[in-house]
Amino acid sequence: MKIGVLCIGDELLKGAVINTNLGYMGSKLLQEGIYPAMALEVPDRSEDMVNALKILMKETDFVLVSGGLGPTSDDLTKPAVAEFLGRKLYRNSEAVKAITDRWASMRRGSDLPLHFLSQADIPEGAVLIPNHYGTAPGIYLELGEKDPFPGKYIVMMPGPPSELDPMFDHQVMPLVKKALDSKLYSFLFHIAGVGESRVEERMQRIIASLPALSVAYCAAPEFVKLFITSECEKTIENASQMIRKEFEKELLSDKAKTVAEEIILLLKEKNCTLSLAESCTGGLISQLITNVPGASEVYEGGIVSYANKVKENLLKVKSSTLMEHGAVSSECAGEMLEGLKKAFGTSCGISVTGIAGPGGGTEEKPVGLVYIGVYCKENLHVGKYLFRGSRDQIRARSAAVGLNILRCMLKGYDVKHAGSIFLCPRS
Amino acid sequence: MKIGVLCIGDELLKGAVINTNLGYMGSKLLQEGIYPAMALEVPDRSEDMVNALKILMKETDFVLVSGGLGPTSDDLTKPAVAEFLGRKLYRNSEAVKAITDRWASMRRGSDLPLHFLSQADIPEGAVLIPNHYGTAPGIYLELGEKDPFPGKYIVMMPGPPSELDPMFDHQVMPLVKKALDSKLYSFLFHIAGVGESRVEERMQRIIASLPALSVAYCAAPEFVKLFITSECEKTIENASQMIRKEFEKELLSDKAKTVAEEIILLLKEKNCTLSLAESCTGGLISQLITNVPGASEVYEGGIVSYANKVKENLLKVKSSTLMEHGAVSSECAGEMLEGLKKAFGTSCGISVTGIAGPGGGTEEKPVGLVYIGVYCKENLHVGKYLFRGSRDQIRARSAAVGLNILRCMLKGYDVKHAGSIFLCPRS
Repeated sequence: MKIGVLCIGDELLKGAVINTNLGYMGSKLLQEGIYPAMALEVPDRSEDMVNALKILMKETDFVLVSGGLGPTSDDLTKPAVAEFLGRKLYRNSEAVKAITDRWASMRRGSDLPLHFLSQADIPEGAVLIPNHYGTAPGIYLELGEKDPFPGKYIVMMPGPPSELDPMFDHQVMPLVKKALDSKLYSFLFHIAGVGESRVEERMQRIIASLPALSVAYCAAPEFVKLFITSECEKTIENASQMIRKEFEKELLSDKAKTVAEEIILLLKEKNCTLSLAESCTGGLISQLITNVPGASEVYEGGIVSYANKVKENLLKVKSSTLMEHGAVSSECAGEMLEGLKKAFGTSCGISVTGIAGPGGGTEEKPVGLVYIGVYCKENLHVGKYLFRGSRDQIRARSAAVGLNILRCMLKGYDVKHAGSIFLCPRS
Repeated sequence: MKIGVLCIGDELLKGAVINTNLGYMGSKLLQEGIYPAMALEVPDRSEDMVNALKILMKETDFVLVSGGLGPTSDDLTKPAVAEFLGRKLYRNSEAVKAITDRWASMRRGSDLPLHFLSQADIPEGAVLIPNHYGTAPGIYLELGEKDPFPGKYIVMMPGPPSELDPMFDHQVMPLVKKALDSKLYSFLFHIAGVGESRVEERMQRIIASLPALSVAYCAAPEFVKLFITSECEKTIENASQMIRKEFEKELLSDKAKTVAEEIILLLKEKNCTLSLAESCTGGLISQLITNVPGASEVYEGGIVSYANKVKENLLKVKSSTLMEHGAVSSECAGEMLEGLKKAFGTSCGISVTGIAGPGGGTEEKPVGLVYIGVYCKENLHVGKYLFRGSRDQIRARSAAVGLNILRCMLKGYDVKHAGSIFLCPRS
């Protein structure tokens, strides 16, 4: 079965909004061993939508549509689909009730604007998908003999990720799985500190021993995602066991979806606390940590010491150190760590000082040179790294390595597992 | 003339990489008054690419292709295009020289792998677009009488944004403009602190007085982008003048593309310095500021005071304040600001304390309640805000309002121009 994705909205083509819905659905589908065969973005024009639907219905079997279900005049997805199928729209009473109830609970006092109820209009014969995070319901259609493309499927979902994501996970994925030709078993692993090509190499032995296994890799700044799928449940069990052994020290736990999440789980488990001293990352690590709900249980805070005098005054870096070795030096990273420990008294800490560019590099200290210090109780590591790439990439890689060193220390692993690969990223 | 975009790569459909190239090109095209009529994503398979090209060449006139130009076995864009056009690939000597020169300058010592030179293969009759930021050159094709779709255009660009962005700006946009039927004049404004619908309302008078003017709006968390285009240069001049008057206090300067950039320009101009005390934003404002190259000239650093004891120890918030009013209070935001001033001695500062959720809210202090304090020399403002949305949205809106209050203060405007609209964002 081929999956198609249609994302509707002028804003996607004008660059006002980056299309994250495609990536979201793609990554969730991949966990079931499939991914879209084609994706399309078109403006909010009825004629463009019908045209796009025709293309996708011809090329694929199950079309996921996002956007254009709202109450305003540019929300035209349902009329377009109804026109394409030759079905009528009718006002669904269950949807009317859900919309009026939601309105009443959200804004007591003011009347529901009449045009809001257009969100309750659905094509005849369609199945309503309730929206628990917004007003516009989703719609599911199995095409029959009277429709064009009989036997194929269309699902329409609201465009905002805060509504689409939960609807896709809990209501749409079961429909996709039901339509799949065969039952697929799958598992997703996150491998931190190893490059994609090295993960591929180390997987060869496992793949060779399990012919029924399908494997896919996706590289992100902080880890490689490894997806395994098979029609045979036992194959997934065996592969998982072999992968857990092969990548023992690089695997995130099954509960964590980011290295920051893993660190917060580990800190809680070990009754540890964390603080941060950031220079060139400028608050990025703090940002990644506080992105995780519940971070406040273990994260105390940090100091962004962008200027040298902040390093001296708040982190007690010696002025002689700054004079002799400069702010970008292992000596400075080490003293930042000491100062951090004194200021916050946490059991763990990370310090980062480097040159993110594009300016500020010299022959001796080029752009990309970063010193990262980490302490975890009595253990301490200060390392020198040279990252390639843009300012953003150097900052992102510095943050990823800093977090991964702490992960290794909390796990009691050698910090060499934290990712020398970041030294030579693929261009 | 209709523009089509084709983005190639399994990773886009698997969700490993979010397609930012479409948005980048879309936003740049919009500055010329056009935007893509259709965009497509397909996997790295020759057959899918040819199929996608056929669809786009039928629907549009100028097709922008990104990705699949590299040296590995899944880089199949050029063979696919050559096959589609029935043209042969040949090894271009100019491209061979550029690739070998780049290799020599990057990694002295090691030999160039032979398969790397496949990047120099281009279809007969194509024009080479030099790549100044990577090895794979771009390719430009005007289709002739012997080709399918004569009179149409294809441009191929490398997929990595660090290579595509500068190539699109400096080498591809001139080709698009040359192919446009008529000369268009345009301008882009950034309006901070006013909601999209209010910008639309206030534009009505201007639009009514200038019939030759086209207007487009794009809402982002920190501002609304307002694009104006016209075939008549004088219309753009008149509209610009009217817009500058209407939105005098909300317009960013022409040099700034973000509020953080505007603030850094203003701080430099006024010889001011900045420090930050962040609680619920957890380093996000620091991150936005340090995203801007050259921020170090005016930004000294900050304290992320996530735990109350950090507020007490480093920012000298009184324990009685925390006891009586709590950490999420105007009193605490005010004392954080005083502590910040003492610790860093900067001429400007921002403090943020609030409840980003999803947990931690109460009847009295719900999720979304945020106090923001800003000082700028002798001026001081502490405000109470209630933001709707997810944890991420609440954090992003808090950061946007904090920065915009500082912008207003630096400009000498009333802080009411900083954005009460953020209180009731569109759902």
